[in-house]
Amino acid sequence: MSDIPAEEAARHRAKMEKRKAVQDAEVASKTQEKGLLIVHTGAGKGKSTAAFGLALRTLGQPEGQAGTRVGVVQFIKGAWHSAERDALAAFGARVEWHTMGEGFTWETQDLARDTAAARRAWEKACELMADESIGLLILDELNIALRYDYLPLDEVIATLKARREGLHVVVTGRNAKPALIEAADLVTEMTLVKHHFKAGVKAQKGIEF
Amino acid sequence: MSDIPAEEAARHRAKMEKRKAVQDAEVASKTQEKGLLIVHTGAGKGKSTAAFGLALRTLGQPEGQAGTRVGVVQFIKGAWHSAERDALAAFGARVEWHTMGEGFTWETQDLARDTAAARRAWEKACELMADESIGLLILDELNIALRYDYLPLDEVIATLKARREGLHVVVTGRNAKPALIEAADLVTEMTLVKHHFKAGVKAQKGIEF
Repeated sequence: MSDIPAEEAARHRAKMEKRKAVQDAEVASKTQEKGLLIVHTGAGKGKSTAAFGLALRTLGQPEGQAGTRVGVVQFIKGAWHSAERDALAAFGARVEWHTMGEGFTWETQDLARDTAAARRAWEKACELMADESIGLLILDELNIALRYDYLPLDEVIATLKARREGLHVVVTGRNAKPALIEAADLVTEMTLVKHHFKAGVKAQKGIEF
Repeated sequence: MSDIPAEEAARHRAKMEKRKAVQDAEVASKTQEKGLLIVHTGAGKGKSTAAFGLALRTLGQPEGQAGTRVGVVQFIKGAWHSAERDALAAFGARVEWHTMGEGFTWETQDLARDTAAARRAWEKACELMADESIGLLILDELNIALRYDYLPLDEVIATLKARREGLHVVVTGRNAKPALIEAADLVTEMTLVKHHFKAGVKAQKGIEF
């Protein structure tokens, strides 16, 4: 089947046996079950996109059970992510998507309007947190609303912490507040290593929109 | 509508006007269109998940046009991401998913078998790269196959660079090779800031599987 020397194959096998023992022990040590508070932050791409990818995990579970619906509340963006919204429409009522933001804050240029929009979005988020059919709630760009003080940080964190057991919440957006990171179970920072915009390549269909 | 002082509102407006001018100028400066070579790497979560989220962008485009199908080749994982696979089945023939890996390398413990599996997966990837109905190709965990030298790096990079115009390719997996980062248009590193495993919380349905 191959020309790999027996010695090398044995070495590989021994190394991987060791690795497997470590992995298995690690998995066995984790026993607690709970809904997670997840934060995707950083200046890189993929924060919202990974959240929508997580939605697929929930939607891949058998339909009709408690917690197999997905809620999305968009706090800031409206124009972006419309293709994902269109695609998730394939799952019908299993995805409940609310675009509450008025667009980027540098598009609206109106603080009162942005604050009011963030408050409406937060009220919708609270409504969905109470809905037991929902297993995953994506609060898209909530970090931006918090950064600009459109919403009181203390209130938001207290409510997220008091969420019902079993509900996963994903908060996206750059510049996550330290208090939110402190409260979260899982935080990933998306770091930009290299971007095609730097090379003069424009926003691409299928990638940026 | 609000109790924001006029002065503060005006200051906000002026700041955002400035910000908008910068954004608009930046967008206008990007003119090139091309399929992108994208790499998701790093030890954090969300590398594959963000790739599957990108799939939704392609699938949200109107059906039937060239480049609106998605290909997935899984080089290493088999057991994970089955929920995403089940969910993407909702899009029928628009998603072509091939799980070619035999599982994690520390599960198989067999170098010859892993090398042969990686070769078969790469041949499938080449086949999908030639298929013009596909607009986005996800090479899931290819970085792992490259890291363990299951495939020759030079051959892989040359083929990826020579891909047809308009095809987006996403390569996932930690420890991306520097030569691949060099060849890529867009590289995001997912950095682990905080993980619930550390707090003894186990892999959660809807998040890890």
